[in-house]
Amino acid sequence: MKSTFDILKEAKAAKAVLCALDTKTKNEALLRMADALEKNSEAILLANKQDMENAKGTVSDVMLDRLCLTPERIKGMADGIREVACLPDPVGEVLARVERPSGIVVEKTAVAMGVVAIIYESRPNVTSDAAALALKSGNVCVLRGGKEAFLSANAIVTAMRKGLNEINLPETLINLVQDTTRQSANELMNAVGYVDLLIPRGGAGLIKAVTENAKVPCIQTGTGICHIYVDEDADFEKALNIIENAKTSRPSVCNAAEVLIVNSKIAREWLPLAKERLVDKRAAEGKIPVELRLDERASEIVEGTKATENDFDTEFLDYILAVKVVDSVDEAICHISLHSTGHSEAIITENSENADKFTKAVDSAAVYVNASTRFTDGGEFGLGCEMGISTQKLHARGPMGLKELTTYKFIIKGDGQIR
Amino acid sequence: MKSTFDILKEAKAAKAVLCALDTKTKNEALLRMADALEKNSEAILLANKQDMENAKGTVSDVMLDRLCLTPERIKGMADGIREVACLPDPVGEVLARVERPSGIVVEKTAVAMGVVAIIYESRPNVTSDAAALALKSGNVCVLRGGKEAFLSANAIVTAMRKGLNEINLPETLINLVQDTTRQSANELMNAVGYVDLLIPRGGAGLIKAVTENAKVPCIQTGTGICHIYVDEDADFEKALNIIENAKTSRPSVCNAAEVLIVNSKIAREWLPLAKERLVDKRAAEGKIPVELRLDERASEIVEGTKATENDFDTEFLDYILAVKVVDSVDEAICHISLHSTGHSEAIITENSENADKFTKAVDSAAVYVNASTRFTDGGEFGLGCEMGISTQKLHARGPMGLKELTTYKFIIKGDGQIR
Repeated sequence: MKSTFDILKEAKAAKAVLCALDTKTKNEALLRMADALEKNSEAILLANKQDMENAKGTVSDVMLDRLCLTPERIKGMADGIREVACLPDPVGEVLARVERPSGIVVEKTAVAMGVVAIIYESRPNVTSDAAALALKSGNVCVLRGGKEAFLSANAIVTAMRKGLNEINLPETLINLVQDTTRQSANELMNAVGYVDLLIPRGGAGLIKAVTENAKVPCIQTGTGICHIYVDEDADFEKALNIIENAKTSRPSVCNAAEVLIVNSKIAREWLPLAKERLVDKRAAEGKIPVELRLDERASEIVEGTKATENDFDTEFLDYILAVKVVDSVDEAICHISLHSTGHSEAIITENSENADKFTKAVDSAAVYVNASTRFTDGGEFGLGCEMGISTQKLHARGPMGLKELTTYKFIIKGDGQIR
Repeated sequence: MKSTFDILKEAKAAKAVLCALDTKTKNEALLRMADALEKNSEAILLANKQDMENAKGTVSDVMLDRLCLTPERIKGMADGIREVACLPDPVGEVLARVERPSGIVVEKTAVAMGVVAIIYESRPNVTSDAAALALKSGNVCVLRGGKEAFLSANAIVTAMRKGLNEINLPETLINLVQDTTRQSANELMNAVGYVDLLIPRGGAGLIKAVTENAKVPCIQTGTGICHIYVDEDADFEKALNIIENAKTSRPSVCNAAEVLIVNSKIAREWLPLAKERLVDKRAAEGKIPVELRLDERASEIVEGTKATENDFDTEFLDYILAVKVVDSVDEAICHISLHSTGHSEAIITENSENADKFTKAVDSAAVYVNASTRFTDGGEFGLGCEMGISTQKLHARGPMGLKELTTYKFIIKGDGQIR
């Protein structure tokens, strides 16, 4: 087994190769990688079958489904890589240019980060997505997936490397950490001088561990305690549609709503409608009803579970919704500022003054007026794809596309100028 | 004495006030602050005199000169604030806008960070510069200066707060930490939820301590081991002018050159000219001659001190220059990648191929062709002013102006859209 440190040294050495490639070559490499995935799907499926067998009984059914590959899913992964090939290349773009009185020309130019490491969990498609995004943005990637998906990830990387080989590019542009114990994650976090950017993708525990302990630059992603505030001037039907969509269309994702805040002036009238939509109607249709966890005031209006303090600080990722009643948009903003993870929040209102107040004061990556928080996604924002959703303010905020995987440098050309 | 935590709480509470101010009001506040500095210059000079007396004998003459205020310097500080008032306001700018097929409109909008804390050393003008830049970019500032300059900083902040008072703005938009022991620096580094961005400005020790230990987001600034590589195809006269300027025009600053790398094909001819210019000519003119610290090969060509390993990893900030001979631009790039702090490096060459290779491969904030590294500065790059020079790749790289003190959020407006 190759050590993590050896892999990091190889990745660092490969930076120079990747930074010298032009857009055409990078796109050609991506198309070869996509084709190689499909050509080697038999080997990938075999490895995946083994992963599935090993994982059975140790992980939940949801996890097993995430882990499972099919020929269709492999085709989807290959098409994902092909889509990245079609996106514009962010590297080399001159972001600003100024000619100074002295005659020097200063160009602020987008460049790759260098080596991007990604620590993720069990979804095999993250392996190909992350490799494609890194390569297109000029970055060597070091992938460190979950142990349940190791054989699948290894087969996927092996296939993509075959694609690189076909056009004589070094395999070390795409690297998979072989050690899936906690030690390798620690090595990546401490690889100062080797890892230029570390992105943790996964549960809150992983992200907390990385952002608190990493000595290398990293970006906090993904945890989403998303709030929807239904204002006194809300359109009732819009509010019902949006909360239903944000809570139930895909509860396991980070942009799903976890907390509903309702203005007291409409709570008596609207909350029963919300309960009808989220609980009774769903039960009648044979769907999983939403469990409402109600604060004191909400529980005086509708039936449901009594909320604990903790319920307003939990990313349920399930058919559970914490509900709170407030007296004003200001009180809603205040609650959000204390409990939000800075991901996505929405106000439902026809009152433009309250909408403005909310979008100005709420300090989150995405702030919505009359739309579902589920739209927070690179594709939905027109970025084409994403490496994750940043919940921090430095560097990147919200969905991270290709551009967010680059930095810039100032290139200054003179003719002997001194200061 | 007000505790650092109480100051942080007040700063956090003041965010909402500042984020609601329009550009006109912020500019008016800046002009009042500038006038107040001049009106209160007597009190500021008195405080500064006390600082100077306390510091005498405990700090170097260079430090004493940095600490010293005069009526002219106060006028300069006030004018610095007035210049910030004239710069464009970065807050609220729509950086990208897209209308999606669903009808939602996504606006990526520049917003303030929130609370920006700055840990700095003894120059009193940093107090007013930082306060002005923070206010203009919509950020509440928490200033923590060096203990030698505390009375001066306190008098400056008191004056600026009087300016805020005149137009009924809360004093807590500008805050000075009262405790100047190490404890307050630690409190700022750990103030998760209170400090949105921490900027250390000062020596390498301070910056290392902050970037290694801070739990809040921070930006690494300033340490500059800057290299100048004189290529085989260099114009000799340009090379002499640039190294002289980069080394001697202001040796105590971070963009001064510390290392000279010379191609072996011209070293025998050019290095003696460099020694003549940097050592002999300066001595003859009564200026401080540069001490050359020569590697093995350079010491075979000219006279000077024998370099130790350490000399190629030291920010001298003095009339000292480490000198190394290499056989190619590749070897120069390789040395730089091992020893640079990522600040500024230059190649002197008339060969555009080597220039391109150098600017592509050198991974620093500013990479020069035929110009002095001394240009790395917000004003020189046309940014108007700067809060420091970032040597990291995340968020900001190189001189940080107003824009780099902001982040963005996505504001999404819909009419009931769900996904």
